[in-house]
Amino acid sequence: MTLDTLLQTYKLEVTKPQNFKDFEVAGIAPLEVATPNHLSYVDQKSYLKKLKDTKAGAIFIRAEFVSKVPASSLALISPNPHLAFAQVSEAFKRAMFARPIEPHPPKLAEGVVLMPGVVLGENVEVGEGSVLMANVVVGDGVKIGAHCQIYPNVTIYQNTLIGNHVYIHANSVIGSDGFGYAHTAQGEHVKIEHTGIVQIDDDVEIGANTTIDRAVFGITHIKKGVKIDNLVQVGHNCVLGEHSIIVSQVGLSGSTTMGRNVVLGGQVGTGGHMHIGEFTQIGGKGAVGKDLPPHTNYAGAIPAMEIHEWHHFLATLRRFAKKQKPSLIDKAKGLWKR
Amino acid sequence: MTLDTLLQTYKLEVTKPQNFKDFEVAGIAPLEVATPNHLSYVDQKSYLKKLKDTKAGAIFIRAEFVSKVPASSLALISPNPHLAFAQVSEAFKRAMFARPIEPHPPKLAEGVVLMPGVVLGENVEVGEGSVLMANVVVGDGVKIGAHCQIYPNVTIYQNTLIGNHVYIHANSVIGSDGFGYAHTAQGEHVKIEHTGIVQIDDDVEIGANTTIDRAVFGITHIKKGVKIDNLVQVGHNCVLGEHSIIVSQVGLSGSTTMGRNVVLGGQVGTGGHMHIGEFTQIGGKGAVGKDLPPHTNYAGAIPAMEIHEWHHFLATLRRFAKKQKPSLIDKAKGLWKR
Amino acid sequence: MTLDTLLQTYKLEVTKPQNFKDFEVAGIAPLEVATPNHLSYVDQKSYLKKLKDTKAGAIFIRAEFVSKVPASSLALISPNPHLAFAQVSEAFKRAMFARPIEPHPPKLAEGVVLMPGVVLGENVEVGEGSVLMANVVVGDGVKIGAHCQIYPNVTIYQNTLIGNHVYIHANSVIGSDGFGYAHTAQGEHVKIEHTGIVQIDDDVEIGANTTIDRAVFGITHIKKGVKIDNLVQVGHNCVLGEHSIIVSQVGLSGSTTMGRNVVLGGQVGTGGHMHIGEFTQIGGKGAVGKDLPPHTNYAGAIPAMEIHEWHHFLATLRRFAKKQKPSLIDKAKGLWKR
Repeated sequence: MTLDTLLQTYKLEVTKPQNFKDFEVAGIAPLEVATPNHLSYVDQKSYLKKLKDTKAGAIFIRAEFVSKVPASSLALISPNPHLAFAQVSEAFKRAMFARPIEPHPPKLAEGVVLMPGVVLGENVEVGEGSVLMANVVVGDGVKIGAHCQIYPNVTIYQNTLIGNHVYIHANSVIGSDGFGYAHTAQGEHVKIEHTGIVQIDDDVEIGANTTIDRAVFGITHIKKGVKIDNLVQVGHNCVLGEHSIIVSQVGLSGSTTMGRNVVLGGQVGTGGHMHIGEFTQIGGKGAVGKDLPPHTNYAGAIPAMEIHEWHHFLATLRRFAKKQKPSLIDKAKGLWKR
Repeated sequence: MTLDTLLQTYKLEVTKPQNFKDFEVAGIAPLEVATPNHLSYVDQKSYLKKLKDTKAGAIFIRAEFVSKVPASSLALISPNPHLAFAQVSEAFKRAMFARPIEPHPPKLAEGVVLMPGVVLGENVEVGEGSVLMANVVVGDGVKIGAHCQIYPNVTIYQNTLIGNHVYIHANSVIGSDGFGYAHTAQGEHVKIEHTGIVQIDDDVEIGANTTIDRAVFGITHIKKGVKIDNLVQVGHNCVLGEHSIIVSQVGLSGSTTMGRNVVLGGQVGTGGHMHIGEFTQIGGKGAVGKDLPPHTNYAGAIPAMEIHEWHHFLATLRRFAKKQKPSLIDKAKGLWKR
Repeated sequence: MTLDTLLQTYKLEVTKPQNFKDFEVAGIAPLEVATPNHLSYVDQKSYLKKLKDTKAGAIFIRAEFVSKVPASSLALISPNPHLAFAQVSEAFKRAMFARPIEPHPPKLAEGVVLMPGVVLGENVEVGEGSVLMANVVVGDGVKIGAHCQIYPNVTIYQNTLIGNHVYIHANSVIGSDGFGYAHTAQGEHVKIEHTGIVQIDDDVEIGANTTIDRAVFGITHIKKGVKIDNLVQVGHNCVLGEHSIIVSQVGLSGSTTMGRNVVLGGQVGTGGHMHIGEFTQIGGKGAVGKDLPPHTNYAGAIPAMEIHEWHHFLATLRRFAKKQKPSLIDKAKGLWKR
């Protein structure tokens, strides 16, 4: 689809530059990896440092930043570039999967076992000795290495890459859409199509009923030897370092990254875009609200107390805190308004 | 089944009124919607205000409240009306689903795609252009609108109503039984059959491995434009306001309601029967223990601290709280007994 | 496989005793149940009290403890007995399941209903009137009692035992591998094969998308009348007492045990190897960090506060705690190092 057709199809009101020249849009991409055939966007000031080196063919951008766009890119002025980008992203969706396998039959290596009810999409490859158990569904273009075991009722979305000796337990979902939307002025949400994938390296084990979302662009990366328990959520674009251990019911927000041999206790949650240093451990129920250094132990869950002690504990602390004056730091941060 | 047969079948020891007259019971229902063919119950004082206008044919009720029953309803005196109600509810169960589709074949509109392994119950309807991916299972009487995508291994229980442009990601479960039991004096739990449904309006997206329970009576309602992430629990009879955003691993107790454009961060949990005002946002891991007003921001998760700081922090606060006298309010509430 | 072959196959560098005599190893087992045909291990001092009565044929053990091994057992000296044990455990794996059912067809009692897409492994037994809904997958050797309902897309791993009148809701997973690994000096994780099972007694109901791991050895035990909600994690070797209630998104670490009629609110989490006394209740989001007595109520979740109050509350408490000197107890425990 050409750029002009895209703009018309999605009824986007953008101001085109004087040097506008239509071209065939191959896809959408972030500034740093976009080619002259890609469409990209600038939403915040923090993107500007990536702007000067971008190769993107065209860029949605607010009027105030337009002077920073390189001569090689077309600046498309929009009051809400993120929303415009989300709207056109729909054209690059690849949601169909697990269609009947003709005319692109799977490549199955020696010793592959497909149990009853397995459904494979187009262009699937499965390596030597891997077993796909009953009712597993595998999307188009998925590659599974050798000696893997995929337990029953697992769903693997399109284009996922899986290494060797990977075990995925029953009813888990790999490669589902990340949770990302742009927002209209009326408070509606426009889906950002996730065109990235999930990549799982060798020797990874993933528990039952766990979900791993694919990247917006690029990859959600589960590195070698990582072990993930049941009912864990791994958001889009997360990077899990080698041999990390993720205990049950952990929730990793989008773009959480971590070094090797991190250990996260049960029900830990992370805010988005945070990094956990290698070999760091976080006790069960911990809330990660900032980057954490390597080789450190963290904890933070209030234990259940006898219920009368608990009510007294909480009431006392709230009363105490209310009586304290805010610190100068709190005032400077604007954290205090009463 | 007639009322008398019901009472005998479930061996209910109730005291019948002098004007007892048997009738064919069409179903069970709460006081406010029951018709003369329905059976209902009164369990707590708070139900009494609904009692005077009820049209219910018969009502399980404790002896102390029997004088409040309208003349048009039969009062069935029971020491535990909730338990009696749960016991007869089993007769109105409709658990069978996804039977072979004859003799009530589905109505499939133009362009509907059923991938391999899809199983449809009786009287299913699917609208134009909707896609049901591999191994999706759909219960009796389910209606799915146009242009929906139901990803692999999703299970949809009987009578669920789904609008247009709805996406449901892999392995999610829509319409499962709510978690509700009445309790015997011996501490056993008697299941309350959930005869309600789930209704999902247009433009809703639901993540992977999420569960949405159907209502006891009436509907669990996911309104237009709501976006739900992976591994979320939505309890029976919840109402999610238009364009609300529910991030991964949130848990909503039964009958949580909310206005439009509410945002709940990851791992938030709510107590039962609470309301969150429109446009209110709650940070990740927040615990909702009371109704919250509209247009407000809430937060409440203790961050993970370096483990020695954490132990000192917690020990200090517990010591401090123990030294404080309880407030008069705490005493008045009976929250202090040491 | 004989002991010598095992040691060679997994390249284990152990020091054999002078009285070494090869034997056919029937399996791996903990000290207290091992027979002369079993292999066991001693990893910590706390195991020594079980050592003197063990019947195990051979035991991986550290050099320092070797003098405590009974004459009837062979002491195999290893610097990391747990790791050695994990390495050989792979030989006793029984992961295949849900193969085509010949030549060991299932035994189906009268009135059993198998809906479309159901896949049964070898030697499965299903009792009178039980219903297996669409796309349910059942592993080898599973026994399901009478009048059970297994909802669509449920996965049941090999050898699980299920009583009568058990309901398991859609997409739940019963009997998945427990989350247990031994660790090499290089920080890699070696899987401990879980050779135990899950046993579910009569009248249990299990929600949707819930996971119950099987035991390392022995059983994970869900006792009579227990009710489990959606998205709950039950770790390996847990024991849930009769008529206990486990609300949505609870996470039970391995070897959590509890008495009868315990109630755990939504999102409660427990540390490993803890006991909760009978009839004890824990409010939503509570963290269980120690054994809890019977007949008590616990709570411990900080409520979401208006966001400015919250920031002030937390900052005030951290400042206050930092100013306090550590108690003598904290010092004695080594909980304070600044």
